[in-house]
Amino acid sequence: MSEIPADHLDLLERPIFAQLGTIRPDGYVQVNPMWFEYDGQNIRFTHTTTRSKFRNLKANPTMTLAITDPTDPMRYIELRGHLTEVIADPSGSFYQELGRRYGNESTAAPPDKAERVILVMTIDVVGGVR
Amino acid sequence: MSEIPADHLDLLERPIFAQLGTIRPDGYVQVNPMWFEYDGQNIRFTHTTTRSKFRNLKANPTMTLAITDPTDPMRYIELRGHLTEVIADPSGSFYQELGRRYGNESTAAPPDKAERVILVMTIDVVGGVR
Repeated sequence: MSEIPADHLDLLERPIFAQLGTIRPDGYVQVNPMWFEYDGQNIRFTHTTTRSKFRNLKANPTMTLAITDPTDPMRYIELRGHLTEVIADPSGSFYQELGRRYGNESTAAPPDKAERVILVMTIDVVGGVR
Repeated sequence: MSEIPADHLDLLERPIFAQLGTIRPDGYVQVNPMWFEYDGQNIRFTHTTTRSKFRNLKANPTMTLAITDPTDPMRYIELRGHLTEVIADPSGSFYQELGRRYGNESTAAPPDKAERVILVMTIDVVGGVR
């Protein structure tokens, strides 16, 4: 994978709502705000198997994450990669972990926990950095 | 075009740094923060003819704009559309107009004004709204 520039590593470590771009079967790009976690190598998301992003990624595993500094929106990092793993999370525990990371200590398991999965994105290229 | 829901119209009117998704010739999605203006029908961006987004759009006019409320990042609107017009802006005046919209009253013409263009995005579909 590409190296994350040290002076932008904070963007991967802070609980920022990032923007995930995927490609829809109809050819349009889909861009959605997402919680994420960086494990030092890959990016992890909580998601469900019933939403359109999951359908998009099944058909085309390409995914790009843009993380913009909320305190300085001219500062950002763009990570281009692809879906490499889908891990079942039927207890919703990873959802809860991300909820805590994003400031809600008492995040409950989600109502849709039976369909919850962890999406693992491998970073292929560090794109735009500013 | 699709109707913008009235309760999300503020996201198009406020000077928010939005996220523009395009598709690169290598197949990856590109997502970048962008200034924009909504004229009541189309979305307008200032850009140059020498950057990769322009190259992307020349090859594939599909473009998607995600606008997230900076004061409530769970609230957003996603607009899927395509590039319908490229208007030369050799004086950089539209760049200056957007600079003022984004809070800098004394925005100067940009050094790259000779390559400046206005990208006009037609909205085909209002995608995610939350």
